[in-house]
Amino acid sequence: MTKYVYLFNEGNKDMRDILGGKGANLAEMVNMGLPVPNGFTVTTAACNLYYADGKVINEEVVKQIETVLEKLETLTGKKLGDEANPLLLSVRSGAPISMPGMMDTILNLGLNDKIASALSKDENSIRFIYDSYRRLIMMFADVVKGKGKEAFEKLIQDKKNARHVQMDIELTAEDMYDIAMESKKVYKKLTKENFPEDPKEQLLLAVQAVFQSWNTERAKIYREMNNISDSLGTAVNVQEMVYGNLSDDSLTGVAFSRNPANGDNKLYGEYLEKAQGEDIVSGVRTPKSIEAMQRDFPNIYKDLKDISKLLERHYKDMQDMEFTVEKGKLYMLQTRSGKRTTLAALKIATALVEEGLITKEEALMRVEPAKLDELLHPAFAKEALAKAPLITTGLPASPGAVTGKLYFTVKDVIAASNNGEKVILARTETSPEDIQGMNVAEGILTVRGGMTSHAAVVARGIGRCCVSGCHELFIDEANKTMTNGAKTYYEGEQISLDGTTGKVYEGEIVTEAVNISGDFEKFITWAKEVKKLGVKANADTKKEARTALEFGAEGIGLCRTEHMFFETEKIFAMRKMIVAKNTKEREKALQELLPMQRADFVQLFQVMNGKTVVIRYLDPPLHEFLPKTAEEINKLATALKITEDDLRETIDGLREFNPMMGHRGCRLAITYPEIVVMQTKAILEAAIIASKNGYVVKPELMLPLIGDKNEFTYLKEIIETTAQEIFKQNKLQLEYKIGSMIEVPRGAVLADEIAKEAEFFSFGTNDLTQMTYGFSRDDAGAFLKDYYDKGIFKKDPFKSLDEDGVGKLITVAAKLAHHTRPTIELGICGEHGGDPDSIAFCHKIGLNYVSCSPYRVPGAILAAAQVAIKERS
Amino acid sequence: MTKYVYLFNEGNKDMRDILGGKGANLAEMVNMGLPVPNGFTVTTAACNLYYADGKVINEEVVKQIETVLEKLETLTGKKLGDEANPLLLSVRSGAPISMPGMMDTILNLGLNDKIASALSKDENSIRFIYDSYRRLIMMFADVVKGKGKEAFEKLIQDKKNARHVQMDIELTAEDMYDIAMESKKVYKKLTKENFPEDPKEQLLLAVQAVFQSWNTERAKIYREMNNISDSLGTAVNVQEMVYGNLSDDSLTGVAFSRNPANGDNKLYGEYLEKAQGEDIVSGVRTPKSIEAMQRDFPNIYKDLKDISKLLERHYKDMQDMEFTVEKGKLYMLQTRSGKRTTLAALKIATALVEEGLITKEEALMRVEPAKLDELLHPAFAKEALAKAPLITTGLPASPGAVTGKLYFTVKDVIAASNNGEKVILARTETSPEDIQGMNVAEGILTVRGGMTSHAAVVARGIGRCCVSGCHELFIDEANKTMTNGAKTYYEGEQISLDGTTGKVYEGEIVTEAVNISGDFEKFITWAKEVKKLGVKANADTKKEARTALEFGAEGIGLCRTEHMFFETEKIFAMRKMIVAKNTKEREKALQELLPMQRADFVQLFQVMNGKTVVIRYLDPPLHEFLPKTAEEINKLATALKITEDDLRETIDGLREFNPMMGHRGCRLAITYPEIVVMQTKAILEAAIIASKNGYVVKPELMLPLIGDKNEFTYLKEIIETTAQEIFKQNKLQLEYKIGSMIEVPRGAVLADEIAKEAEFFSFGTNDLTQMTYGFSRDDAGAFLKDYYDKGIFKKDPFKSLDEDGVGKLITVAAKLAHHTRPTIELGICGEHGGDPDSIAFCHKIGLNYVSCSPYRVPGAILAAAQVAIKERS
Repeated sequence: MTKYVYLFNEGNKDMRDILGGKGANLAEMVNMGLPVPNGFTVTTAACNLYYADGKVINEEVVKQIETVLEKLETLTGKKLGDEANPLLLSVRSGAPISMPGMMDTILNLGLNDKIASALSKDENSIRFIYDSYRRLIMMFADVVKGKGKEAFEKLIQDKKNARHVQMDIELTAEDMYDIAMESKKVYKKLTKENFPEDPKEQLLLAVQAVFQSWNTERAKIYREMNNISDSLGTAVNVQEMVYGNLSDDSLTGVAFSRNPANGDNKLYGEYLEKAQGEDIVSGVRTPKSIEAMQRDFPNIYKDLKDISKLLERHYKDMQDMEFTVEKGKLYMLQTRSGKRTTLAALKIATALVEEGLITKEEALMRVEPAKLDELLHPAFAKEALAKAPLITTGLPASPGAVTGKLYFTVKDVIAASNNGEKVILARTETSPEDIQGMNVAEGILTVRGGMTSHAAVVARGIGRCCVSGCHELFIDEANKTMTNGAKTYYEGEQISLDGTTGKVYEGEIVTEAVNISGDFEKFITWAKEVKKLGVKANADTKKEARTALEFGAEGIGLCRTEHMFFETEKIFAMRKMIVAKNTKEREKALQELLPMQRADFVQLFQVMNGKTVVIRYLDPPLHEFLPKTAEEINKLATALKITEDDLRETIDGLREFNPMMGHRGCRLAITYPEIVVMQTKAILEAAIIASKNGYVVKPELMLPLIGDKNEFTYLKEIIETTAQEIFKQNKLQLEYKIGSMIEVPRGAVLADEIAKEAEFFSFGTNDLTQMTYGFSRDDAGAFLKDYYDKGIFKKDPFKSLDEDGVGKLITVAAKLAHHTRPTIELGICGEHGGDPDSIAFCHKIGLNYVSCSPYRVPGAILAAAQVAIKERS
Repeated sequence: MTKYVYLFNEGNKDMRDILGGKGANLAEMVNMGLPVPNGFTVTTAACNLYYADGKVINEEVVKQIETVLEKLETLTGKKLGDEANPLLLSVRSGAPISMPGMMDTILNLGLNDKIASALSKDENSIRFIYDSYRRLIMMFADVVKGKGKEAFEKLIQDKKNARHVQMDIELTAEDMYDIAMESKKVYKKLTKENFPEDPKEQLLLAVQAVFQSWNTERAKIYREMNNISDSLGTAVNVQEMVYGNLSDDSLTGVAFSRNPANGDNKLYGEYLEKAQGEDIVSGVRTPKSIEAMQRDFPNIYKDLKDISKLLERHYKDMQDMEFTVEKGKLYMLQTRSGKRTTLAALKIATALVEEGLITKEEALMRVEPAKLDELLHPAFAKEALAKAPLITTGLPASPGAVTGKLYFTVKDVIAASNNGEKVILARTETSPEDIQGMNVAEGILTVRGGMTSHAAVVARGIGRCCVSGCHELFIDEANKTMTNGAKTYYEGEQISLDGTTGKVYEGEIVTEAVNISGDFEKFITWAKEVKKLGVKANADTKKEARTALEFGAEGIGLCRTEHMFFETEKIFAMRKMIVAKNTKEREKALQELLPMQRADFVQLFQVMNGKTVVIRYLDPPLHEFLPKTAEEINKLATALKITEDDLRETIDGLREFNPMMGHRGCRLAITYPEIVVMQTKAILEAAIIASKNGYVVKPELMLPLIGDKNEFTYLKEIIETTAQEIFKQNKLQLEYKIGSMIEVPRGAVLADEIAKEAEFFSFGTNDLTQMTYGFSRDDAGAFLKDYYDKGIFKKDPFKSLDEDGVGKLITVAAKLAHHTRPTIELGICGEHGGDPDSIAFCHKIGLNYVSCSPYRVPGAILAAAQVAIKERS
């Protein structure tokens, strides 16, 4: 016969599946000899049987409950329904996985008129007894019958009005009696039934109510969202009541074995004297901090602290505990691993390793990789944040918490920054032109664009806070105002951006810095020891490269050369190159760019001394670089000695219908091989200079947007010819590699062919996602919201790699590439390189490395470590 | 020992690989007993040996040439180098595959000073002998030594000047002798060598020259372009001279066994009296038509005609023959299958079947499918065409030959058309808005866009002539002019477009209609009997559907519902739908569209009675439908009772960065399910009406741009719910299918998943090509030219399906789909559906049908038949 009901001492912490999380931990504490009120757990199997039987509690289950109840009565020396010595119970749900939306607690179960009356022989108890009784009736009506609490709470209010008092505590024993009796009438009115006076009937109804709560809408939606199986079922915990509200030396509280906010190894928590657990949750009275307990109840504090340490050592993790003290005696009601901030998670995990409680691998599994970058940026002070008026909520495009004055144009933002102001750049959307402005700004706000829009990608790259996709806002650039519909904000006003939550606030908000360098470095070092996947950074400048190194990057996986052109002087030379009417003019402009780019590369190679630097040839559509304002056009036309009309015609000619699918990537290089020649010179001459300066250089040259082997071969020949000339001129031969981005589906499908020529591949998952789905990241915002709302897509494929579609192409490509060239180095360098799920995928399919923006490097290292650890077990 | 040299009677027509095409056919004619001057062929193997030995004629080859030469001397009773009875020879190249750029003929080989002098004993021959001799010297200098003919031709001119005569014929025997002697001096001056007097040396040098000519630049480029292997090598044909210029009853000519222009079964050709073959080619004298021979040389005519019939029966194909008559005796110098127009090809093939010479299958292999649509359009009269001034050459986007008055805006073109003018619409590029204008125009000309640009696709769909991508032209729409740089063309001027060649001409050019209905239908019927692949048409209107049926379409494979909205009234309702601020407004606008679209579908179903009609839900980005001119905006704003500024803001909000990858296809349907509901109603209510009218309707509903099963499922549910309501209301249940376009790579990769829900797939190869390559057809023009020039791409992937990349995705998808749903119907409906290579590919991977524009249907049917025939053998 299946065992459906377990006394606490019959279970243990590993029986979570059948006893639920709460039941398993109660059992464990009982077996550890800790003071836990006695009780039993009805299993999840009983819940499943309940549904299998058509929502009826099986007779066998009823029988086992009765048998176990008798044992409990023996253990406690009390009896359910016994007027002389009644057993009073709490009933709580407890699923295998902690789940909101399930049934609330029912307390004081076992009371009825007769028992209440019998207990009332002690004069001092009357008020307490009937308060407990009326609470039972209210909870039953609410939780078991679904009729809510309002009608019952009104009885209290009416009574207080009648008595002209303010506080519940001012009501008398007689008042409480009246309210309990009125509650029964209200119960009958609402439910068309009498309140069940039979304690056993109460118990079975409560158990059934817990089972029922497994299938509420809220619970079902939560499970669907979190991918939890409906077949798990919930357990029911039935436990003897203890009363934190019985006497002056009674109290109830919650405690953490360490500080869940900052990880300090110190008991943390709060409690209420003369109160039941629900009073803490309701927030009617303000609890005292655990320090007060140390002073006022030193013995209880010591017991609690000892138990806390015992549990922590036993569970090898920081514990979140509920406790009640009844007449000076401490009872533990629950323990579980506590939720904590990323900062606390990292500090606790590191400390537990040093305390010898867990291994480094276990520690590494305790921190969420995606949140690690929070620690690298300051955050808004919580209290200040609570008071700040919210302007709107957009997408958390790049983390950080910043305040600055609002400006709407790059020109204004630069001018204000030059005046020493802290500034925020707000744009409808950003284009590559805006990068100078983005660079001087504390943060960037955009109306359009998703998590991988231009603004978001650049901001993450340069470590600026960014909130994108604030669709509610309207920016009027002409009048330099911004409105959320309700209120208009003007140029120069202070606003604050939280790039971790996507929220935008009015005014200034103070921030708190995070200082965790010691633990952080230790932790990352452990992760590096364990992980197999390489982690490189996407970095375009010396500064970014330094940041990337500090954060643990093992090389640069993507240097976007076009980002190097966005300074005033360089963009001007670039523009001359683009509007050149013929090869000669173009080469002249390229000659101007050569020394600038070479100097940038020298710095990059020197910072990255000894590490690989993957440099991508010019990628974006040329027209992105073109001047837009009349002033810029005038300036460029003057410099080129052509008319503005001529220049405008050239610019018009470069216009594309679908720039994302236009003249970019290696296509530019094929049309204008002189660009490849110049860039090859800049890279390899820089490598030679750095090498002669004593640095070890490892350049890897990467061609973007390759979809056909012939494209690669054509350009490879140009690069090799140029390289040989440079080596000859400089009398120095350097090692370098030539590889290919794989970012159009055709490149993936023909990876075996391309691998004949390419020495490495880097999957550009941003573009590959766009092309595979056939939607551009800049336009998808218009409909993806509907996709999520209608449940068509569960997650953003630009954020987390689409393993089914895009991932299948990558897997196929990796297989084909390995077949042709077993030693080929494979990596990804899209935004997905920083996403833990995507990193796990890259590990599984055998890629060599991921590359992501510098601030995401630590998280990527951790994610790579976690997947390696998981694989081992 | 390998045999390197064959007497003609040792070979036959099947030895083309070693004897070359010409040699094999000469051998065949000898064996047929036809009058062919005797000779021998040096094999292609000897040529390969020549290169293998480092450009030296192998001794064994020389030995065999000598041996065979002796046999030839025996056969002819003449001897090479014999003064009394000299053997004179012609030497010609002859590769296994006919190839321009190879060596020209050397005639009169074997002459030298002594022999010429010996032959001159006959006074009457002197002039002829020295004319022949000086020609040999000139040809040797030109062909063997590469020194050209100019210096030798100057000798003739100088002599004529000295003699004050105009014509060669006026020069005397003595003059010819002088010129021959001078030629030898010029030869020595140019080559630093004496002219080789030894006939055997002449022969070996000539053979070597033929071998050398296999590797000229021109020949190599031709082979590369036509994918001919370098290892084939060329053969050399050495043949006894016959002289068409020896006497008054000598002549030379070329003839076709039937008319190669129109296929008439009548000897066709031309000849020159007293001439050598080269005189016909050079065009100095105007040849006489073969009819003149019938009158002037009836016996020769009869012989030639008999031989022509004999050869045609023997080769089972129309023959292209060269012949020479020496002193009244006819000699055949060459025969081969003749080149012919598509019209002639079709008529000849059909006739040969009826004459019992070839099977239907053989006939079907004789016509080029891609050219079949030429027969469906009138063509410019050749003579008129030759005189027409060319404006520019663009891409042959949609066939036809039309003349009309030039207009630059849709408004102007419609107005002029209403005035009864024949008009041509010239635009920088077209957008869906222009379709009304395209519809009334004779032809469309665009500056931008490739073979699959909007203009090209629409024009082919509606059977309008179109020349796209005329990059040399600049259209000034404001001033209503067009210039090619040299000349400006104004509104209202007559121009002519040839959509088959891509040429644009000034003025009017008369056209010739083609009338071949009887043979054409017979031919298509045969093709249908043989082919396995279904051929459907892309058709959006009743008119197109009728055309498609006439041309043999078996159903509509793609009805683009958005094309139905392009009439004034409909586009206006459509616009109201798009700018609707909420679902209610949108539904109201859709209600206006419903009856219009339903009426269109009723017509379509009735025309297609009994055949499947695949209808695609709304596909293009909505903003394509929006008004652009101030006038249109004003009209729409007025109708909607909103301000123009409001409307402009809405239009701005719909702007996309990459419309091709934006809010279109099923994404529209998911955001606005009310569109799907309206279209489902329009289709199924129309089906019910047609059905009640007694027609058999087979609607297949197709969702575009599906990349995820959930997209399909979501919409399928809406369609099915709507369908059930309609059937209930109308008390009639109809069969219908719901299927998916596969046109984004993700759809292909996840075809197994999507096939769980979809009853059919149609591969949209236009979009699939764009997404797989990652370039849009409208933007690729800017760089694809460089790709072709640099040999990176060999063919246009938008024209002929890229089997390696896109084809691989389709193959995988077909396999996955069949795995999930073995009965799934698979087709393609991109532009590739009309391309013979792509059709062969679709056949091979087991698709069920292709669908293409109506005018390409016959070609598609033929291509499908050809691949089926090839597969059998």
